[in-house]
Amino acid sequence: MSFAELLAFERLPAEAGSAVLRARVTPAHVNMHGSAHGGFLYSLADEAFAIASNSREADAVALSVHMDYFRPVFPGDLLVATASEEHLGRSVATYRVAVARHGAPAGEDAPGRRDAPRAAGDAAPHEDTAGETVALFTGTVYRRPRRSGAG
Amino acid sequence: MSFAELLAFERLPAEAGSAVLRARVTPAHVNMHGSAHGGFLYSLADEAFAIASNSREADAVALSVHMDYFRPVFPGDLLVATASEEHLGRSVATYRVAVARHGAPAGEDAPGRRDAPRAAGDAAPHEDTAGETVALFTGTVYRRPRRSGAG
Amino acid sequence: MSFAELLAFERLPAEAGSAVLRARVTPAHVNMHGSAHGGFLYSLADEAFAIASNSREADAVALSVHMDYFRPVFPGDLLVATASEEHLGRSVATYRVAVARHGAPAGEDAPGRRDAPRAAGDAAPHEDTAGETVALFTGTVYRRPRRSGAG
Amino acid sequence: MSFAELLAFERLPAEAGSAVLRARVTPAHVNMHGSAHGGFLYSLADEAFAIASNSREADAVALSVHMDYFRPVFPGDLLVATASEEHLGRSVATYRVAVARHGAPAGEDAPGRRDAPRAAGDAAPHEDTAGETVALFTGTVYRRPRRSGAG
Repeated sequence: MSFAELLAFERLPAEAGSAVLRARVTPAHVNMHGSAHGGFLYSLADEAFAIASNSREADAVALSVHMDYFRPVFPGDLLVATASEEHLGRSVATYRVAVARHGAPAGEDAPGRRDAPRAAGDAAPHEDTAGETVALFTGTVYRRPRRSGAG
Repeated sequence: MSFAELLAFERLPAEAGSAVLRARVTPAHVNMHGSAHGGFLYSLADEAFAIASNSREADAVALSVHMDYFRPVFPGDLLVATASEEHLGRSVATYRVAVARHGAPAGEDAPGRRDAPRAAGDAAPHEDTAGETVALFTGTVYRRPRRSGAG
Repeated sequence: MSFAELLAFERLPAEAGSAVLRARVTPAHVNMHGSAHGGFLYSLADEAFAIASNSREADAVALSVHMDYFRPVFPGDLLVATASEEHLGRSVATYRVAVARHGAPAGEDAPGRRDAPRAAGDAAPHEDTAGETVALFTGTVYRRPRRSGAG
Repeated sequence: MSFAELLAFERLPAEAGSAVLRARVTPAHVNMHGSAHGGFLYSLADEAFAIASNSREADAVALSVHMDYFRPVFPGDLLVATASEEHLGRSVATYRVAVARHGAPAGEDAPGRRDAPRAAGDAAPHEDTAGETVALFTGTVYRRPRRSGAG
């Protein structure tokens, strides 16, 4: 089990240089104030950053990251992190990741862990609406020639 | 279960305005490269930041954070995050958190999750040595009058 | 003379919550490598950030900023900084500022200080083309009720 | 004239990997609020960062920087920026720069531009006292083999 699996991040289709991840906040993700831990939001953004930056012909290693928190999120909230490329250089590259909150789908408005899969045919929340941006991440990677087949 | 419990962060004694946390990297914390996920290191630093900033007479909410990664860490590595106050103002405050790696104690050099408590009398690793700094975090909080007894 | 005047920043029209500034790199702005000093690019972005954040009904004071440098720029290069609002809250707000390099207009391709005003009728460079982003800035302000008429 | 000369930064002795710079805030350095422009404080920190990072056996180019502002400073204030090495790697390195305000020396307490040199024998302000930290900067450079004799 990887860290992304431990936190139940779900990867959605995206172009090379981009990434879209979805995660549900559960009671296991909260901080001392009862809202989602800053580390949980960060981890979602960081994973999207890692996928986007490693989708190019190089291994990308995070050097320096910055995150601004706009609003708290709570158990039951569905989050979508969207990573996009700001600059792709030979040795370094920079990505922006917006983390947006989407309203709970109909019939899923109670807070708490949700193990049930979404019903077939449900549109991905990030396709319905842009949601409300709750945090913004900027990260820079160091790029080196790929050593292995790892993505 | 909170996020800090999910990740098995262990809180060590510290003065007001400071915090010291310890965590062991396990296989559940790794990224696509097999080293600890940036989100795991960040979460440890962020939790130390939250404890230190909420130890003052106000509720502290993270606004803006920055993290630099120096070296990868791997399953079996023991990490200690030490938060200290850089500036304490009325409405905002800034903290620095250094994350250091400590060598595995004798007899504990195999990677993997370690549920066994440290033997009585073992010195806390961060008291033995400063370790090697593997990441550096700076975070700024917004402070507002405390609403509740939460720490 | 203010700092923005010392560095000859030129303010272009923009909506509330936004700002657009233009500046020419001169030999007085270079660093030890002969390219524009990081502080010059930063100051341009920071001034756009200040104008955008103070265009709202509050005095905005910079708390925390982050900047990534993508490419060096040189004397003669024309820079345009465009600030936009990422999040406007009651007590804090966050802005993004992209700094783009625009090719020297025809007949102005020689590096060096340019004191001559642009000819009337010249289109503003940022209207011609998006330019090439050379640096990206993110900044967060603390907002407090306006004390004076200062903009 | 370089940018550091334009802003009258004064370099004080420091060990390799470190740097200490001093500057006086003048009326030409102020922002719309009448305090020193964020870009002025940043430029001082950035120049100390550049000197420290280029004092090693490589050319260092700034990639990513972060700055937190703690307190405003005003014309007449004397600032000292002290850069120290947080991490020196082969391809990247990270520096911390603290910017401190020092009280005006006796007989120099009036705000405004000060063109007079310090009297011979005056102790450097940063040797007298640590001052009050007004801003904190963290910066990461990319290091590449030195091409020239430039420092």
